[in-house]
Amino acid sequence: MFYPESVAIVGVSKRTDGAGNQFLQVLQKFGYSGRIYLVHPTATEIEGLKAYPSLKDIPDKVDFVNISAPAPYVPQIIADCVAKGVPAAEIFTAGFREVSEEGHKLELEIKKIAAGNMRIVGPNCFGVYSPAGGLTLLPGPNYPRESGNVGVISQSGGWVGEFIWGSDAFNMNFSQVVSYGNGIDLNEVSLLEYFAEDPNTTVIAAYLEGINDGDRFRKTVSSLRGIKPVIIWKGGLSETGKRAVNSHTGSLAGDRSVWNAFFKQTGAVPVSGFEELLDTTALFNYLSPGNYRNLAFIGGGGGVGVAASDICEGFGFKIPQSTAEIMGEMSKLIPAQGTSIKNPFDTGSPNTPAQVLERLVKIVAGWTEIDALIVNRLFFYGLRQLMGEHLAEQDARVSAIIKVKQQIDKPLLVVLEELAYGSDKIDMERDRRNVRDALLKAGIYVTPNVYRALRALHNYSEYWKGAGMKRKAS
Amino acid sequence: MFYPESVAIVGVSKRTDGAGNQFLQVLQKFGYSGRIYLVHPTATEIEGLKAYPSLKDIPDKVDFVNISAPAPYVPQIIADCVAKGVPAAEIFTAGFREVSEEGHKLELEIKKIAAGNMRIVGPNCFGVYSPAGGLTLLPGPNYPRESGNVGVISQSGGWVGEFIWGSDAFNMNFSQVVSYGNGIDLNEVSLLEYFAEDPNTTVIAAYLEGINDGDRFRKTVSSLRGIKPVIIWKGGLSETGKRAVNSHTGSLAGDRSVWNAFFKQTGAVPVSGFEELLDTTALFNYLSPGNYRNLAFIGGGGGVGVAASDICEGFGFKIPQSTAEIMGEMSKLIPAQGTSIKNPFDTGSPNTPAQVLERLVKIVAGWTEIDALIVNRLFFYGLRQLMGEHLAEQDARVSAIIKVKQQIDKPLLVVLEELAYGSDKIDMERDRRNVRDALLKAGIYVTPNVYRALRALHNYSEYWKGAGMKRKAS
Repeated sequence: MFYPESVAIVGVSKRTDGAGNQFLQVLQKFGYSGRIYLVHPTATEIEGLKAYPSLKDIPDKVDFVNISAPAPYVPQIIADCVAKGVPAAEIFTAGFREVSEEGHKLELEIKKIAAGNMRIVGPNCFGVYSPAGGLTLLPGPNYPRESGNVGVISQSGGWVGEFIWGSDAFNMNFSQVVSYGNGIDLNEVSLLEYFAEDPNTTVIAAYLEGINDGDRFRKTVSSLRGIKPVIIWKGGLSETGKRAVNSHTGSLAGDRSVWNAFFKQTGAVPVSGFEELLDTTALFNYLSPGNYRNLAFIGGGGGVGVAASDICEGFGFKIPQSTAEIMGEMSKLIPAQGTSIKNPFDTGSPNTPAQVLERLVKIVAGWTEIDALIVNRLFFYGLRQLMGEHLAEQDARVSAIIKVKQQIDKPLLVVLEELAYGSDKIDMERDRRNVRDALLKAGIYVTPNVYRALRALHNYSEYWKGAGMKRKAS
Repeated sequence: MFYPESVAIVGVSKRTDGAGNQFLQVLQKFGYSGRIYLVHPTATEIEGLKAYPSLKDIPDKVDFVNISAPAPYVPQIIADCVAKGVPAAEIFTAGFREVSEEGHKLELEIKKIAAGNMRIVGPNCFGVYSPAGGLTLLPGPNYPRESGNVGVISQSGGWVGEFIWGSDAFNMNFSQVVSYGNGIDLNEVSLLEYFAEDPNTTVIAAYLEGINDGDRFRKTVSSLRGIKPVIIWKGGLSETGKRAVNSHTGSLAGDRSVWNAFFKQTGAVPVSGFEELLDTTALFNYLSPGNYRNLAFIGGGGGVGVAASDICEGFGFKIPQSTAEIMGEMSKLIPAQGTSIKNPFDTGSPNTPAQVLERLVKIVAGWTEIDALIVNRLFFYGLRQLMGEHLAEQDARVSAIIKVKQQIDKPLLVVLEELAYGSDKIDMERDRRNVRDALLKAGIYVTPNVYRALRALHNYSEYWKGAGMKRKAS
């Protein structure tokens, strides 16, 4: 685990807006409890802390160095690290292979100095968020302090920073998150090997632009098939994307056909965007392994059922039509008009009474042909407003879902749409998030719309199918 | 315009939770200023209002009747309407052709009674939201009172209700919205013809499940090509979707190939989901006509540029690489490291200084090869928190965008990601919505992510291309 007892920041500025100052602030605000040392060529004090002219003047061992000094100075700083016996450093500084041949030479020089002496994260990256280690260099002073089971490696500090923000929507926490930029030493290969061995990490998510050692990476990912899911968003598969990758991290993006073959061979889960990476990674924390293909939808409203059906087809899901027996049971609970007892089930109103909802879920869970259940909405803001529905009724519905979830052995997902977009309707979004959080805490995956639910469930099911699992039916 | 001076509600219940009571409440809460009459077979007073045993006992002319009485009673109620000279009614009641042959016969009976005597909306629908008429039957007591230019027709009350909620995200208002369910009289054909003639309606959005008179509908849509855009979400194109459509409105969904031909022939804009309908419809209020294919992205962060590039390819957009001249100008404003001056432009931080942002936009707007500009984010929550950036700086950035938008003659779209998902981060979402609203008011289209921006812009560009417009370049 990454837990340096002391960190030195090289590149802090006398002004308060330097990159080093930003790293100082994030360490302090996050509550890093180790010792922090600042290095500056001329200043003796910055932001109330003593500053040292160089690393070797610090009268203490240094476990980790954060570097944001200009690129041409970095080789000397790394040499100072080696001289002082610093085991690891993160280089935030950009301006290496991604900008010029000269920058590339600097990178190689750094690599040579560090080789065998210390480990490097970067350059051109934000570094590490390690809740167990009590620190973050990624700019999230209020990132969660709790550790979790998801390990993340990323060549984009921006996306991975937002990934951590996004984890709130799924009650997801992290073992370690590493933004590694150009990856001249620690890279997707070594970081993946670390997470493969790490007992605290059970799911691995990655944003990759290029690969340094394709064979070794392929081998490690393959070895994890069916053991630790690896979900990969490969950026830069388009022609323009390749150019953008080159400007960003100086990586060789590789061809789509090569990556398609990689995914097929290794069993890694391919995703193609930020939300998909987030949704899919999170889903692995909520369901038991399985290939879930036959779905039942329980919702209020005919149009939402039509839309869900159309989305299902695109992903290859089936919505089996109710048997006579199921329809018989359903008809005792669902009125005969303005509804449907055929699947997708339509109770007539998203504000279904709690007891009815509970019984409907039980009936569907007992239907052998169904692999997974999706409760499509729990309320409609307009109706709630209109009918003056008390929060107590909504709470009853949420409690009913939580209760029945514990009594059934099939996956149950809940769709809670974000629809109250108005600036004057922020209380409704707060309300939605509170309901979401209660469900997440009870182990129920919640997603903002059917498309995102099914895209994630498709990825999940394909993963387990690839790992040799047959369709999961009870 | 739909503005009844008096409305009668048939189907109100002595209890407070009947459908008719809901309609009473929505009319009252929305502030309908006409006269409301209640009809109930036995009660003399309901919810503080006098109730009449039948329509003919009402001692006043009745302009509109809302019916939620059980299906078997509806033919008699319609006969009463005709006898009293009521010009129009909306039938909320379900249980017609969508449930049984008997229900179908009831529908035909109603149709026969009404024919030539009065107009019917429904059955199996919510009816009308007409801000200019001062009323809504759709359950949105706090829908906007302001009228707008968008006309909507829908076979789903649920989706169209949410469409109106969703309009908050685009500062979009409506001329009239009609949920018409089974559409036995007024239907997609007659409603489209109404909107085609209505001078207040300049954009038409539709959620359709089936078509009553394909030839007439095709002809009307075709006649609007290049004049009033018609954006259509056709629900039920999948096999299961067809079944769901049949359970919902008893419509014949039609085949995908037929609909593909329809869109090609008519120039209507095909969309395949709720968000896409919303995003695309709204975009027609923000851009001048054109086929915008060559894009520039201005953002902070390399990873977001890579992702934008990949999304562009899927929709057939190009991101031209900067000319030497553009790079020269850019390099005066953007630091040399951790950035890109090639397009997608990366300023290095989403929190770009306002003056720099303004000048960048101007440079790109002057680049002849570019059709449209996308500003990809205006802040990153983590950095703002960390650096204690004052709202004043954010406001300056927003003001800069608004100012420069007035000085350029190319479309400018802004992506403001919804990323602060935590229940404890609701203030950030409030903040985001306030920024969004300021931009929308200044005529700038704002969207929550690049994918949604490009999907809408693609639909928009295809529409104008289909209408015979060449690529729009300056």
